[in-house]
Amino acid sequence: MCRFLAYRGEPIFLTDLVCAPSHSLVHQSLHAAEAKTETNGDGFGIGWYGERQVPGTYREVRPAWSDENLRSLCDQVRSGLFFAHVRASTGTATTRANCHPFAHGRHLFMHNGQIGGYSRIKRRIEALIPDDLYETRHGTTDSEAIFLLAIANGLATDPVDAMARTLKQVRVLMVEAGIAEALKFTAAVTDGENLWAYRWSCDGNPPTLYFREAGGNLLVVSEPIDDKTKGWREVPKGCGLVARAGSETRVQCLNEAMAQLAA
Amino acid sequence: MCRFLAYRGEPIFLTDLVCAPSHSLVHQSLHAAEAKTETNGDGFGIGWYGERQVPGTYREVRPAWSDENLRSLCDQVRSGLFFAHVRASTGTATTRANCHPFAHGRHLFMHNGQIGGYSRIKRRIEALIPDDLYETRHGTTDSEAIFLLAIANGLATDPVDAMARTLKQVRVLMVEAGIAEALKFTAAVTDGENLWAYRWSCDGNPPTLYFREAGGNLLVVSEPIDDKTKGWREVPKGCGLVARAGSETRVQCLNEAMAQLAA
Amino acid sequence: MCRFLAYRGEPIFLTDLVCAPSHSLVHQSLHAAEAKTETNGDGFGIGWYGERQVPGTYREVRPAWSDENLRSLCDQVRSGLFFAHVRASTGTATTRANCHPFAHGRHLFMHNGQIGGYSRIKRRIEALIPDDLYETRHGTTDSEAIFLLAIANGLATDPVDAMARTLKQVRVLMVEAGIAEALKFTAAVTDGENLWAYRWSCDGNPPTLYFREAGGNLLVVSEPIDDKTKGWREVPKGCGLVARAGSETRVQCLNEAMAQLAA
Amino acid sequence: MCRFLAYRGEPIFLTDLVCAPSHSLVHQSLHAAEAKTETNGDGFGIGWYGERQVPGTYREVRPAWSDENLRSLCDQVRSGLFFAHVRASTGTATTRANCHPFAHGRHLFMHNGQIGGYSRIKRRIEALIPDDLYETRHGTTDSEAIFLLAIANGLATDPVDAMARTLKQVRVLMVEAGIAEALKFTAAVTDGENLWAYRWSCDGNPPTLYFREAGGNLLVVSEPIDDKTKGWREVPKGCGLVARAGSETRVQCLNEAMAQLAA
Repeated sequence: MCRFLAYRGEPIFLTDLVCAPSHSLVHQSLHAAEAKTETNGDGFGIGWYGERQVPGTYREVRPAWSDENLRSLCDQVRSGLFFAHVRASTGTATTRANCHPFAHGRHLFMHNGQIGGYSRIKRRIEALIPDDLYETRHGTTDSEAIFLLAIANGLATDPVDAMARTLKQVRVLMVEAGIAEALKFTAAVTDGENLWAYRWSCDGNPPTLYFREAGGNLLVVSEPIDDKTKGWREVPKGCGLVARAGSETRVQCLNEAMAQLAA
Repeated sequence: MCRFLAYRGEPIFLTDLVCAPSHSLVHQSLHAAEAKTETNGDGFGIGWYGERQVPGTYREVRPAWSDENLRSLCDQVRSGLFFAHVRASTGTATTRANCHPFAHGRHLFMHNGQIGGYSRIKRRIEALIPDDLYETRHGTTDSEAIFLLAIANGLATDPVDAMARTLKQVRVLMVEAGIAEALKFTAAVTDGENLWAYRWSCDGNPPTLYFREAGGNLLVVSEPIDDKTKGWREVPKGCGLVARAGSETRVQCLNEAMAQLAA
Repeated sequence: MCRFLAYRGEPIFLTDLVCAPSHSLVHQSLHAAEAKTETNGDGFGIGWYGERQVPGTYREVRPAWSDENLRSLCDQVRSGLFFAHVRASTGTATTRANCHPFAHGRHLFMHNGQIGGYSRIKRRIEALIPDDLYETRHGTTDSEAIFLLAIANGLATDPVDAMARTLKQVRVLMVEAGIAEALKFTAAVTDGENLWAYRWSCDGNPPTLYFREAGGNLLVVSEPIDDKTKGWREVPKGCGLVARAGSETRVQCLNEAMAQLAA
Repeated sequence: MCRFLAYRGEPIFLTDLVCAPSHSLVHQSLHAAEAKTETNGDGFGIGWYGERQVPGTYREVRPAWSDENLRSLCDQVRSGLFFAHVRASTGTATTRANCHPFAHGRHLFMHNGQIGGYSRIKRRIEALIPDDLYETRHGTTDSEAIFLLAIANGLATDPVDAMARTLKQVRVLMVEAGIAEALKFTAAVTDGENLWAYRWSCDGNPPTLYFREAGGNLLVVSEPIDDKTKGWREVPKGCGLVARAGSETRVQCLNEAMAQLAA
């Protein structure tokens, strides 16, 4: 599994969240507290929005805790919307192209979880991705495949519905293949303006997800980066977070969206 | 494009061919003489047979010319059958999984060339690979896809026919997609005992391939690693090399094999 | 040897100089035209000033031409003062800590050249560096040693004199050790506001150095990044460039400064 | 701190000790049980003796647990004398040259521990290394410095005395500099034939060290690689292990050797 962090609000230096806090994401790369694995050392990545419409990314195969470049970048880059992710591989290779966040056009996506039995249905999932999107697949992870499939399913228009459709499609393939392991999906996506997060698993036991709001700034994390009592709220299992610019952040039920699709 | 070297014969230290000669493969990584690109710095790899049935491999994303590990390994490992490859990417990422040689069971494969317009037909090529082989695809290159497809086409039984079938299949997809760029295929494959090499291109202009035999030792190279006058023979365009253990090395026409398939 | 580029002026995206031009620094990493070595693939680095007093740096061991992170960073980061460097090692290992530019406090430094016979006098050079500066030596190159020694010699106060003293000190050690190879020193340094460049060699044959001024923007390069006729001026051998903020850029004789020291 | 393993005996595949056991060294890279740090992910290395007098080495900056090359090498290489090490940095950079084991001529050396306050006396330690040995210093660690200094002190002739002298010299510098942190030194060295190991600390609290002998095969480890009840013996604090080819392995007091020096 992995640990991640998403921020939207007043522009701040990335280091203020990624490196500085007592239980920062970099600290979690060595000592995650609520993850299946304590060590998240199979690469990492950051993605941020600056002056361009498309985000910048820095992804690297080395552990986050010892990366001098990460420290320097987080110290220099100030952004009002950024993602950061430390990876614990669930089987795919440690390459830059397999590190999160994944960027596509204006979108960033990152994932904590996995498609159970992925290697057995990898190509069937890939077959669902349209040609023009498949050309942009640079890595081999389940996470990137989900992202591209979600784009095909309308991520740009309705991110909750698109992700519900995507998870349904993947589940169908899993069931067909008789896969017993779970589909676990705690994730975040942004179009550079709005932010969505998800916490869902087919076995009702998705990885943790928290958020905190203060003064119009939203922070979404796998686990609190400081004192757990300081205003953190847990995203309920089976739910998503919708944080549209200019609107209140609200929790939306992903299970419901998926049920409606089934109807 | 790339440069490669294959050896079968009396066990020797890899360094004798990979590092020591005046125009060794490591030298070619910086100064290839007959390649489309002089620099082959997008990763490298070696594969060799020792005491195990399956080969060992060492593949790395850094340039061969500065890799201390490569030097040390080539200095230590003695083998009667090994492959070495320095890579110049034709578009895919520089990851270990994209470096040659590729290993599958007892087989090693390496390639110099490319599938023209690969990104447009990548998935259609992948769709031809059977599920159980697709599971073993670790990278994203055209070369690895050709290798796995060739295995599906009977590489273990008849490597010339299997490769002819594979190239035909790829050509069909290229023509269907209206791809103008060429399919270039200079390559080598071994099962740990026998060795085959190929020099073919759909435009009649494949990358160079040479071989030299002396005292029962066979050396196959992209370009001579020493004085060009020293016994090197060029593999004719459209042909392959068949070096079965205990038999004479012979040149076999790949064009012919492909024509027979068409019939 | 290496290739580098320094810019001071109106804030621009790094990509405008590092990646985009026809003969950009990234292009020079594969195809340098005026360098001793055409390939500069032994790592690279960028350093830039943003909102902080200290510069940001991104240094990596892989070749610049295939680095996705470099492309993304250069696309995102806009700066009014930045350095970029592609490395061709003269013997020291390919590690991040050996890649240029080197940062120390507010200063950035990069170098094209070498201390002849460096390994024989390495420690004697290091012995000249004060303790508190030696603690900040992270790599093993001659270039970093020169930089730290120059800081000790007053780089912050008088960069021409400090560098003259430094080169003199190194030359004394070289002569004492009977080293015949040259000390070659084409380099650039900045304190985040002002910029100095040097072109000096003890054998009168230093690596090339050019600059171009337009609309108050200064660009200093190892070799022109576009049409050589477009306003480039060569820095004369044995000279330095002094570009103080708010003053005219002027050429200052380094030979003279060194001669005065001798007197 | 770090974890390591040394083997001398009947030639075996490295994988039998490095990868296969339930608590193998690769497993310890993620889950060390008796180390100060559970994660040892700041690079790793193996060194082994084959047909050459000098050992082969493979050192890499990535964590051992995900390194495909390490797995393949350990699977192929069979040796009667080899070292393996997973690193947890105590401050120096994660570069290949800083990974253990270090090789010099016929010798291999690896270390678990640190010189307290190293950065403050780094150069003074380096000043003790003779010129011709200093030329072969490729990294920046305290461990490599100790190794080179020990060679200067007669490691090839009397490894116990040489190491005692070395530790004494370092201690003198530490005391002079008023350093309060400890000098911790659990280490192993070999000349390709004989093997020595050490467990010493100036505060009487050195990292753990165990060994096991069976059928003439000797295994020395930071912590047992399988069931702790299976014949493991702890090397007492302040002692060393001497395993000369053809002689009984015996424990020798390092404290005593150091005391004699003082006399």
